[in-house]
Amino acid sequence: MGLKVGELAVKFGCSIVGNPDAEVDHVATLRSAGERSLSFLANPAYRKYLPESEATAVVVAEAHADVVAGAAIVAQDPYLIYARMARMLHPRQAPAAGIHTAAVIDAAASVSEGASIAAGVVIDAGASVGAGSVVGAGTYFGPGTKIGRDCWIGPNVTLMADVHLGDRCVVHPGAVIGSDGFGIARGPEGWEPVPQVGGVRIGDDVDVGACTSIDRGAIEPTIIGNGVKLDNQIQIGHNCIIGEHTVMAGMVGIAGSTTIGSNCAFGGNSGTTGHLTITDGVVITARCTVTSDIETAGTYGGVFPHDDIRNHQRSVARFRKLDTLARQVKALERALADKDNS
Amino acid sequence: MGLKVGELAVKFGCSIVGNPDAEVDHVATLRSAGERSLSFLANPAYRKYLPESEATAVVVAEAHADVVAGAAIVAQDPYLIYARMARMLHPRQAPAAGIHTAAVIDAAASVSEGASIAAGVVIDAGASVGAGSVVGAGTYFGPGTKIGRDCWIGPNVTLMADVHLGDRCVVHPGAVIGSDGFGIARGPEGWEPVPQVGGVRIGDDVDVGACTSIDRGAIEPTIIGNGVKLDNQIQIGHNCIIGEHTVMAGMVGIAGSTTIGSNCAFGGNSGTTGHLTITDGVVITARCTVTSDIETAGTYGGVFPHDDIRNHQRSVARFRKLDTLARQVKALERALADKDNS
Amino acid sequence: MGLKVGELAVKFGCSIVGNPDAEVDHVATLRSAGERSLSFLANPAYRKYLPESEATAVVVAEAHADVVAGAAIVAQDPYLIYARMARMLHPRQAPAAGIHTAAVIDAAASVSEGASIAAGVVIDAGASVGAGSVVGAGTYFGPGTKIGRDCWIGPNVTLMADVHLGDRCVVHPGAVIGSDGFGIARGPEGWEPVPQVGGVRIGDDVDVGACTSIDRGAIEPTIIGNGVKLDNQIQIGHNCIIGEHTVMAGMVGIAGSTTIGSNCAFGGNSGTTGHLTITDGVVITARCTVTSDIETAGTYGGVFPHDDIRNHQRSVARFRKLDTLARQVKALERALADKDNS
Repeated sequence: MGLKVGELAVKFGCSIVGNPDAEVDHVATLRSAGERSLSFLANPAYRKYLPESEATAVVVAEAHADVVAGAAIVAQDPYLIYARMARMLHPRQAPAAGIHTAAVIDAAASVSEGASIAAGVVIDAGASVGAGSVVGAGTYFGPGTKIGRDCWIGPNVTLMADVHLGDRCVVHPGAVIGSDGFGIARGPEGWEPVPQVGGVRIGDDVDVGACTSIDRGAIEPTIIGNGVKLDNQIQIGHNCIIGEHTVMAGMVGIAGSTTIGSNCAFGGNSGTTGHLTITDGVVITARCTVTSDIETAGTYGGVFPHDDIRNHQRSVARFRKLDTLARQVKALERALADKDNS
Repeated sequence: MGLKVGELAVKFGCSIVGNPDAEVDHVATLRSAGERSLSFLANPAYRKYLPESEATAVVVAEAHADVVAGAAIVAQDPYLIYARMARMLHPRQAPAAGIHTAAVIDAAASVSEGASIAAGVVIDAGASVGAGSVVGAGTYFGPGTKIGRDCWIGPNVTLMADVHLGDRCVVHPGAVIGSDGFGIARGPEGWEPVPQVGGVRIGDDVDVGACTSIDRGAIEPTIIGNGVKLDNQIQIGHNCIIGEHTVMAGMVGIAGSTTIGSNCAFGGNSGTTGHLTITDGVVITARCTVTSDIETAGTYGGVFPHDDIRNHQRSVARFRKLDTLARQVKALERALADKDNS
Repeated sequence: MGLKVGELAVKFGCSIVGNPDAEVDHVATLRSAGERSLSFLANPAYRKYLPESEATAVVVAEAHADVVAGAAIVAQDPYLIYARMARMLHPRQAPAAGIHTAAVIDAAASVSEGASIAAGVVIDAGASVGAGSVVGAGTYFGPGTKIGRDCWIGPNVTLMADVHLGDRCVVHPGAVIGSDGFGIARGPEGWEPVPQVGGVRIGDDVDVGACTSIDRGAIEPTIIGNGVKLDNQIQIGHNCIIGEHTVMAGMVGIAGSTTIGSNCAFGGNSGTTGHLTITDGVVITARCTVTSDIETAGTYGGVFPHDDIRNHQRSVARFRKLDTLARQVKALERALADKDNS
């Protein structure tokens, strides 16, 4: 499928410098671009590649338009406009609608017309799949699980009982939603299980990454707001509430009963201890551990950058005596003051 | 199913303040409780919700009984008693016994009467499933895998060859038990595999969380003791031995050949390096890294709490020169002493 | 199957001290070894077990040969030679060739003669499986996925569209290769997806651990070089390039667009931020976070060892005022210098 550069520009409200009749049919990086390719410039460090790029068209900010060798599509937010054009050129491939003969659908489950259910899928009683949704091979839907319209659920996903997803959600392979929260009580002969009967409620336009797990609530549901984007290998504990449009990079861990505001961002392998409240608009840098409530929007960090191993080990050894060092400084200050006074 | 509050109290050895004939049929939090609900108070911070709570009955310690609006079920350990009552009200749903026609069971495998095998399950030769055990959709049992009685194995679980589980074990979706340990030897042309022929031996009443992986031993089996509870996304390396009733929160990583005592507790994303020995009764706080043997029961930590990003970056920059700082302090002490002596 | 010790020695270029006609048929640790067992000594700390070991034969360095009770197989690199002999004694069990009747293979997919496809496998159009390769139960191959000869793909693995593996690759259960990279662009109403159209290209002799995820590239493929060994629960972000023979222990996280050289080693739960370049021969210790390019081969660290919790908390409290402490030291130095000059 080829799209004319001029038509793309009009569709997304961009101006154009160059040939509007050129056609593009795939995306490319500036350096690897060839015929019929669409590229973009978002990071100014790559401006140097513009003059030599063989891209048919490049989405750029106005300041870079004159350097583009092919057609320049001028946008205020080039990355966002690129994303939209790329979705036209590369729509997510939708398999044919219908239920594969090797899927096992309970008689009391409901699959809407136009949904696509792959081989090996198992859907239990009371579950429902909305119109236009796609369910990949080997995926399991527990009793009462509901997904809305136009969702894309990858292969080998597990949605346990009473998990509800809104519309246009994406769940990548290996993800598990609605597994039991980690609820145990110490008895005289060992740990005893505490039933986890809350489900999971997930809004619209939520993405859940590969091998990410979201636990069901202990009593009330775990809640994921509209537009939340979760990368791979994330763990969300029971009873958490994640606010709208919050994003988390890979390997983030949110311990149970934590409430996170909207429009927050968590860097890779950052995390929180449990029972915290974090306000809207908080940015947590990679690997940082949040150990108490955060009431003020802003950026918080905690990562230690890599260091030459010997220097690091020396620093660590000193760190473990840092309290002593601080006391020595205090004593020195006092001794010096005594000298001044004597 | 409704249960009379008075009968519950008697069954679990509790006294009661209020109407013993009231019935409960589900659990609720104090704040969301409505008709026919059972709640509990374990954290005194929530005592303030007792007078207004519409719970039909609340499990509480004696000191709080007089504040309960409905019936008070008085227990020495309210959370434990609540857990037991909740298990009566919300037993884990057991699907009908029998083998689904879309499961594939090797002729040389054994499934006990009363077990339930879902669609898409594949069980290889020599594997056996004990009476009353439930195996979820899409789960795989390798050759010689054995699980005991009344286990609950979720959907999309993988148990590789020669993995043995005791009775009443729970394995959540996406978990992998018995994958190869990470054994490689450097050869002249690259890393060569070292066969991993030990299996995995898991005791009774063990829980394994979603997406958790437990590697098989290199030569002898990896061992998980009775009553161990593992949360989600945990990695247990080959040859580890985990003592009875030890618990681990999500994302803990235990490197290979580490032996951990009984009744230990590991906070979220804590971990150990390999070939360590940790004694009984050790508590490791969240995100802490254990790098050497621990011979004394107690609590050990290592996490850095989040901080304002600029303050954190300043501290980190100083940290990397902490050895120099300590030497400066030493020099100051000497200079001051010289002055005193002069 | 029994193998004569003398024949093993000849086959792998080793000399022998003891009875060459003794037979071994399995591996064992020195302490647990019994009849017909092969063991090894790689770590000198275990030399003390040699005299008492009942192993039929032990692979050792020359210096230890005279202490071996049974036959000593003398090798320059005992662990490597042990690995090779162990692979003869314990070859990976290959199920019978052929396609199980409960597998679902698209008419436009290609499975070579001699490959083994288990029950519940789903292979989409355009995918191909090389000769001698084994695919475990419940595994999914997306459109255009290709694996070479003699690969072993475990059960419940997911390979999404356009993932290519070379020969002799091993992928453990629960792994996901080719899931979407985490590409989102902020729009006026929330995060919008950026299509991830690059695939994944994996070389020969690559191992991928259980529950490990490798994302597809945004535009060009994510690349894993020959001989790379990845343990469990690892996350490799989109657009990464991992050099040949690099190894990573469990729970490592490599953020997107990072290029790592060859023959590097990453300790457990270490990681990098994104868009970095790391040269060849770099060793990153467990839990270390790489936050900037590394241009010099060597070992880099960043982990804080566990500490008594109270001492740790004191150190942390001081750490957060480390900048202030450093300024105090500077002031003291100045005050002392003033004294000297007065």
